[in-house]
Amino acid sequence: MKTKTFPTPQDCEAAFYEALETNNLEAMMEVWAEDEEIVCVHPGGPRLAGYEQVRASWAAICASGQRLKVQITQPVITQSMMSSVHSVHETLSLASDPKASQTVVATNVYMRTANGWRMIVHHAAHAPELPRSSDTPMILH
Amino acid sequence: MKTKTFPTPQDCEAAFYEALETNNLEAMMEVWAEDEEIVCVHPGGPRLAGYEQVRASWAAICASGQRLKVQITQPVITQSMMSSVHSVHETLSLASDPKASQTVVATNVYMRTANGWRMIVHHAAHAPELPRSSDTPMILH
Repeated sequence: MKTKTFPTPQDCEAAFYEALETNNLEAMMEVWAEDEEIVCVHPGGPRLAGYEQVRASWAAICASGQRLKVQITQPVITQSMMSSVHSVHETLSLASDPKASQTVVATNVYMRTANGWRMIVHHAAHAPELPRSSDTPMILH
Repeated sequence: MKTKTFPTPQDCEAAFYEALETNNLEAMMEVWAEDEEIVCVHPGGPRLAGYEQVRASWAAICASGQRLKVQITQPVITQSMMSSVHSVHETLSLASDPKASQTVVATNVYMRTANGWRMIVHHAAHAPELPRSSDTPMILH
């Protein structure tokens, strides 16, 4: 069913964020592996697992009509033969109001499949605007 | 410097949560790869990258003396030769008050190293208690 092939994890990631910016559901789902073990967590949201749940969430986001601009910074990448693990900061703003932005930290995991690289995890969470090293991290609030 | 070896990603994950429950910093840092590309995100916190930042955050947590109980449920795992990607729900409670609990969704990534399996990513975020499929996911709030 997949028609696109991504030769590298970076191609896959670029296509993911382009699909997000253009609200293109079909392009978004080309990026994902067609698998029951894919996982997507939107900021503040529940864990979604499997192709159907992940597709349904992106269908709702794309249908909302909210046009976003996404700037990716500070990538930290661990790549091996079959997988590539990316941590990035996403600076998200409305296309209609680029000055108001939010920062999201995202873990994106890609796997090499028989059909090129595909995304298997997107875990996004709101991040404090400016990390302060003096803060004591809390696990349980 | 590492003295423990974890033959499987599951051994590594078990050691991670045991170290968390026992506030054992040395055991916690045995779990992590000694690498500049490791990434840790505590719930609501900034992205920490590299061994020193990650160690400092766990040192603060272990020093807090807050004793947690952690129950792991609903694992979704994608394992390959060199990497293993785990999505889990953590039910966290205070050892002193087991009835009050919070749910965290965590993405844990392990890599096979020359010295057994090690953690390279722990990304944790507070999750809604009960995922509601009718909610429209929001990326920008």
